[in-house]
Parts: sequence; C-alpha cells; structure tokens
Amino acid sequence: MRNFNINEDPHRRYNPLLNEWVLVSPHREKRPWQGQNELITSEPLPKHDSTCYLCPENVRANGINNPKYEGSFVFDNDFAAMKQDEIIYEEDIVYTFFLAKPERGISRVVCFSPRHDLTLPEMEIKDIENIIKTWQKEYAELGAIKYINYVQIFENKGSVMGCSNPHPHGQIWAQSSLPTQVEKTQNSLKSYFDKYGNTLLQDYLKAELKKETRIVIENDHFVALVPFWAIWPYETMIISKRAFGRITDFTEEEAVSFATILKQLTIKYDNLFSTSFPYSSGIHQAPTDGNEHLEWHFHMHFYPPLLRSASVKKFMVGYEMLGESQRDMTPEKSAAILREQSNVHYKMES
Amino acid sequence: MRNFNINEDPHRRYNPLLNEWVLVSPHREKRPWQGQNELITSEPLPKHDSTCYLCPENVRANGINNPKYEGSFVFDNDFAAMKQDEIIYEEDIVYTFFLAKPERGISRVVCFSPRHDLTLPEMEIKDIENIIKTWQKEYAELGAIKYINYVQIFENKGSVMGCSNPHPHGQIWAQSSLPTQVEKTQNSLKSYFDKYGNTLLQDYLKAELKKETRIVIENDHFVALVPFWAIWPYETMIISKRAFGRITDFTEEEAVSFATILKQLTIKYDNLFSTSFPYSSGIHQAPTDGNEHLEWHFHMHFYPPLLRSASVKKFMVGYEMLGESQRDMTPEKSAAILREQSNVHYKMES
Ligand SMILES: O=P(O)(O)O[C@H]1O[C@H](CO)[C@@H](O)[C@H](O)[C@H]1O
Ligand SMILES: O=P(O)(O)O[C@H]1O[C@H](CO)[C@@H](O)[C@H](O)[C@H]1O
Repeated sequence: MRNFNINEDPHRRYNPLLNEWVLVSPHREKRPWQGQNELITSEPLPKHDSTCYLCPENVRANGINNPKYEGSFVFDNDFAAMKQDEIIYEEDIVYTFFLAKPERGISRVVCFSPRHDLTLPEMEIKDIENIIKTWQKEYAELGAIKYINYVQIFENKGSVMGCSNPHPHGQIWAQSSLPTQVEKTQNSLKSYFDKYGNTLLQDYLKAELKKETRIVIENDHFVALVPFWAIWPYETMIISKRAFGRITDFTEEEAVSFATILKQLTIKYDNLFSTSFPYSSGIHQAPTDGNEHLEWHFHMHFYPPLLRSASVKKFMVGYEMLGESQRDMTPEKSAAILREQSNVHYKMES
Repeated sequence: MRNFNINEDPHRRYNPLLNEWVLVSPHREKRPWQGQNELITSEPLPKHDSTCYLCPENVRANGINNPKYEGSFVFDNDFAAMKQDEIIYEEDIVYTFFLAKPERGISRVVCFSPRHDLTLPEMEIKDIENIIKTWQKEYAELGAIKYINYVQIFENKGSVMGCSNPHPHGQIWAQSSLPTQVEKTQNSLKSYFDKYGNTLLQDYLKAELKKETRIVIENDHFVALVPFWAIWPYETMIISKRAFGRITDFTEEEAVSFATILKQLTIKYDNLFSTSFPYSSGIHQAPTDGNEHLEWHFHMHFYPPLLRSASVKKFMVGYEMLGESQRDMTPEKSAAILREQSNVHYKMES
C-alpha cells in the first residue's frame, strides 16, 4: 500500500463538461514505439498553387471560379453534409429502435488567407483578427436563420486529420439540432449555472489560474491551458476570462487578445516538433435558438493527435473505443512542455 | 417540401446503447477523395518471424522468453496501462474540478496462434474455438479477483489501428471501475430491462431480424449486423440470440457458432477490399462485480476505419470530435455490400 501519487500512479480523471472519465497511465510514457509512422511533408509550399481549389481565382469542383479575394473568403461547401431542404416528416413512422429524424443545415468553407502557404501561426495578428470577424459574421448570419439552432466553427489541419488541402481553411456546419457533444456540454453548463450562479468555466478558470501548473498562455482576456481531463497528449482549451456565450460578444480588445493567443498557441504547437502541427480545433458557444443561455461560456478546443514526434501519433483505438479515452503523459507535464516552447516560430529562427 | 427519404436525405439516428446521435449524409457518398492514403503492405508474412516478440520461443522487451506455445498464449502486458498496486487514497483531497481516483488493473496480451502469418479469417474453426476458451478462462479468472469489476477483451488489428505487430493477438484490460462507454451501455441496458423485462438487445435483434436489411450473417445462435446507428462505414455488431450476459455462459454449441460467425464475418471483411481488413473489435459483457446483471446481453463490436478502399479511411475529426459522429453511406447499404461478399477468403480463391 502506497499513498496516491497523481504524477506516477494510474488513475482516472473526471471531465465535468462531458460527464466522462479518462484513464491516465503516467508510468506508461516510456513505452517503445514500433507502430505506424505518419508521413512528414516539409517541402515549402508556393504562395499560389494553380491546382488548389481554394486559392483565389482558381476553379472549384463545381466549375465555379473563386474570386480574387484578399482577406478571408467563405463559400458553401460543394459536398455539404446537410441540405437546406425542408423535409416533411411524420413522428409516427418512428419505432423504438429505429429513431431517425431529418436534419437541415448549411456547410461552409472559410479560407483564412489568399496565401496558399500561410497557416495561423505565420499570419499577422491583424489577418487573424480578420478571420475572427468572418467567424463573427457567419455565426450571426447563420444563427439568424430561423431553423438554424447551432453553428459549429472548426478546423481540420494536416493530412493526419483528414485534411486534403494545405491551403489554410476551416469549416462551419450550421444545423437545426444541437450535436451530441454540444448537448452534453450544454447540460453540464446549465446544471452548474443553475446551482452556483457562475458559469462552470468561470469557476474552473479561477481554480486553474490559482494552480498555475496547467496554464500554457495567459493574456488580458484569454487563457490557453491543458485541461485537467485532457484526452489528447497536447490537447488545449482557450477560455475567455470574462463570462459570455458568443464570439459576437467580443469587445474590440477581446478580439485582438483572441487573435494574439491563437497565434501564440499555434506557434508553440509548431515549435514542439518543428513541424506544421496537425489538429482539429473548434469553438463551443451558445446555441442560436433565440434563448439567452447565460450558462454558456465561450471556449475553443484544440485536439492534436501527435504524441512524441512529428510522425508518431496517439491511437484512440480498441480500449478507447470500447472502454474510455486513455493517455500516458500527464496533462501537467504536457502543459509544462508547451509553456517552455519559444514564442518565435521555428521558421523565423532560421 | 418533400417527404423524408431515409436513403437520400440527411438525418440523425439515435443510438439507444450510448444515448447518442449520429449524423447520416447519404448524398455525400460521391465526394471525391484527395486526402491521405493509408499504406498498404501486402507482402506475405513468414510463419515464424525471429524479430517478432509474440512468436513462440522469441524474447520479449523485458528479456523473458515466450514458451513454445501451440494454441493461444497469454502474458501480462510489459507496458500495462494499469498497475495492481493498492493505493491509499483520501476522498478529501478531491476538489470540484480536479476529481481524480487511482485505478487498479491488469493488462494482458493474448496471442491467437503460434503462426505469425494467420489472422482470424484464415484460421480453422477449432483454432478460433480455442481462442474463445482462452477468453472464457481469462474473463473468469480475472473477474474472480476481488478488486476487478470489469474485463475488457479487445483486438486492435492493422497498423492504421495503431497495432505495431501483425502477429495475430488481442488484449485484455481488467480493472476496478466500469469504463465510460461500458457504464453508459449498462445504464441503457438497465433502464430498458427494468421497463420491459427483456434485454434491450433481445428486442432490438428481434426487430432487426424482421426487417432483414441490416443483417450480414445469421446462424443458429448469433447474428452479425450493421447497427441502425453505426458510425463507422462498415461497423458491425455480433449479438447472441439467447439473452445472457457473459462469454462464460456459452453452451458448447454456442461456442462453435460464435467461432463460426467470427470466421465468416472477418472473411467478408477481408474480401471487401481484398486486404487484411483493419479494425478494433471488442466484447461488451456483464461486469464482474458479483451482481447478477440480468440486463446485460452479450455482444461484440467491430469498428473498422476503412471507407472506400484498402487505403482510404473515414476520418473522425473536427465536426465529429466537437459535434457528433458523421457517416455518408447508410448502414443499410453497408450491410448489403458486406452480405454480398463471398464466404471464401480471397487468398483461397487464387
Ligand atoms: O497497447 P498497445 O498495443 O501498445 O497500444 C495500442 O492500443 C492501446 C489500447 O487500445 C492504445 O491505448 C494505444 O494508443 C495503441 O497504440
Ligand atoms: O469536410 P471534409 O474536409 O471533406 O472532410 C473532413 O472533415 C469532415 C468534418 O470533420 C469529416 O466528416 C470527414 O471525415 C473529413 O474527411
């Protein structure tokens, strides 16, 4: 019998946003890796690629030409996962085990820059502010459509995340239902707010700022940290210091601070393995169902797959799919490693 | 306004086991693929590989020699995710947001065959029966340990599933807590059983056998089907016809039938893209906490990542991580495609 040492002993941690657990096995970090290596492509990209369907003035799959855009550029996804059609649907065709409901929605692609070769960490703060403006505009416009109740802004970056084009871009899927993960999050936020009168993330952030160990970056308005319950080796969350629910609630200063922390965090990510760091990221914010949603607290998740080098990722497979998420290195250690990274992009150093 | 056509219109389906939804976008199936291709290795393997740490008589990382085993062979994982140590742990060190609990457990590796080059679909039925006997023995023995309340039997197959060694093997992680996915499943099974007096899967299977469209294989004691709420393109479930909770409840006939359906299903998988089909699979069964668990119904999940060829997988990324699982092809179509596959392994044809 020994006393519990959270830095060394296997344990489970609780995620109060999703009401789920993660298995942490710190002692397993030293496992040798004999499995699959990811392909690393580090060839420099051209500023404009004539074969890229996202570059200005090029032709897309549907024959339409992109405009000669200068900042960001938004268009409807040519292969949208949802359609806008209104579907007649009778509840009584539903059986206990075969519950299906039509879903309406709009999928858009957001090009971050006309430059084929620039990613977030390499852009100017003012260019990132421009992307934030685009996100605000889309959230407001899509959210104003009567049947749209939720707007998911996200980015898949890197071929290991299924991204087929290195041109910097993200996506927006806006739809009538709350997706599963968002609904779970909302339930947790709501029951916390009803009980304590603060948002869950307001109190969580306060506790994290006091502890300091999991903080990666802090500025006047935002904090980037590795959550206590992170499942991916270098998972982070950006949380606003002020409690508000929507990207459209940003003050002008907050918009600049958010652009700054986005740049700084992605610089640290790139520097970690001297590679264009792959991830899926996305903003969780209040539904656009017309309700006030005081329980919501703006935040952005980063889920990066890499584990120990640019070519070795964490596999969320058998046990994780059937049992629960599992990680080796502790979130505290990941945070320390990220914090240590230079604030100057490695490409700028040389 | 049109009437809902579940084969063509985007919709969401409900998973009653996990209480989650999946977004289905059948019209998106024709999307061109420009993203990452997986590596295909089709070089024939030797029957014994002197560099393989799982082959009989070879040396493992910790210096121990494997015996000259003939059927299956089980050993404690040299890099186990949990430890058996009893940890002293005081509840009062827990704060609202920093909830962590030590977790005890045992991780084992199960070699399916001394032959380095044989996978389940290529083995004899009697050899698969032998693996089933090993699973039964492990479930019983590990489950009998006082602090072990759940035994997860699973297999990661293929480098795309993070499996570092082609030698046929699976794993067993036995632990004191119910992992997240299992606890969710148990809650669903329990509330259904309390309400209807049948197991959820007993009634679900009855409804599926009546519909026929999602059935892949049926024999006297088991059914392999693509669940109505499948998230992976070719996800399947093997469900026992009789309602029982544990692999140790098999009659002798059921053991033979289970071996047979395992072989047939994995043959169809291999034939689909003429490749050794990667997947994570695992058995969900009753906890080993000493309670009766009449609500549990034995089943096995197969989560294969491939989408449209041996080298193109489905990426569960941005929207899926932040929103909810999404699929293109309908489960009905996947089931029809799997059903059509020959029952003779493609390697035997030539
Ligand atoms: O145990 P292995 O084969 O070393 O590791 C593999 O399976 C484990 C259980 O699903 C995962 O946690 C690992 O990420 C994966 O690489
Ligand atoms: O929309 P894309 O880039 O074609 O597709 C990518 O992102 C989607 C949303 O996360 C996923 O559903 C796809 O599996 C992935 O390949």
